[in-house]
Amino acid sequence: MKHTRQRRSDCPINFAVETFGDPWSLLIIRDLVYFGKNTYSEFLASEEGIATNILASRLARLEQQGILVKKPHDEDERKECYTLTEKGLDLIPILVEIANWSAEHDPCTAAPPAWIALTRAEKEKMIRLIRETVQSGGSVFAGEKSLISKFM
Amino acid sequence: MKHTRQRRSDCPINFAVETFGDPWSLLIIRDLVYFGKNTYSEFLASEEGIATNILASRLARLEQQGILVKKPHDEDERKECYTLTEKGLDLIPILVEIANWSAEHDPCTAAPPAWIALTRAEKEKMIRLIRETVQSGGSVFAGEKSLISKFM
Repeated sequence: MKHTRQRRSDCPINFAVETFGDPWSLLIIRDLVYFGKNTYSEFLASEEGIATNILASRLARLEQQGILVKKPHDEDERKECYTLTEKGLDLIPILVEIANWSAEHDPCTAAPPAWIALTRAEKEKMIRLIRETVQSGGSVFAGEKSLISKFM
Repeated sequence: MKHTRQRRSDCPINFAVETFGDPWSLLIIRDLVYFGKNTYSEFLASEEGIATNILASRLARLEQQGILVKKPHDEDERKECYTLTEKGLDLIPILVEIANWSAEHDPCTAAPPAWIALTRAEKEKMIRLIRETVQSGGSVFAGEKSLISKFM
């Protein structure tokens, strides 16, 4: 198959780095999976302080790459609501491994120890549950339908 | 614990992005794990064409962050040999998940299907074997001690 744009190599690690390996994309995906954020203004409010132009550019790129889809918001049609595609949901195992690594190696981590213990003890089951939760409009930590509220 | 440098947040995903989330660091770690590369000139020769100044800066940063250690090369003391620390070896599960994701979603992937099938079917076992192989001086794909040669 022909490449649709110039890329550095066909290595799978490089593909991932070129797709979401910038300093912001994974944080947007994190916001969707862990914090139930779906709108531009919600992503903009995240702690890391993404700039508006960078956020707009990353959302467009993630949409173009088939990781996010955009549709009018159910409650306010002036807003747009971003959700993860199957390809985006398939990133969840990577997020879980990254969180486990950081929880182990960052002495200042904000990762909740009980959650990390749970995803370590039953990794495949928790990955499946996270995926089902996000797919049905919930998230890991935020809101009434949060996954963690079922465990703690 | 006090932060030793300014960071955007204490989120574990952000920690990882700030540690190895630039466009090159994961490719250096890939070279160590999958291709048995250990020296500056070997990393420099990789397909993606990293620039010399960026390579030097990334190696220094990965060393400073405790992911790599540098020592004189066994066969040529003018060269330096980089190896992964425990913290670096702990990135292997992330690499495996990334490779699986890209193999699934990149139609042009160079990931060997038989290898991907193997790491999917027996993920935890393969992660353990990759770690042991790299720790004992081998790699997944390169050289006499390659892990893949034991399976195919």
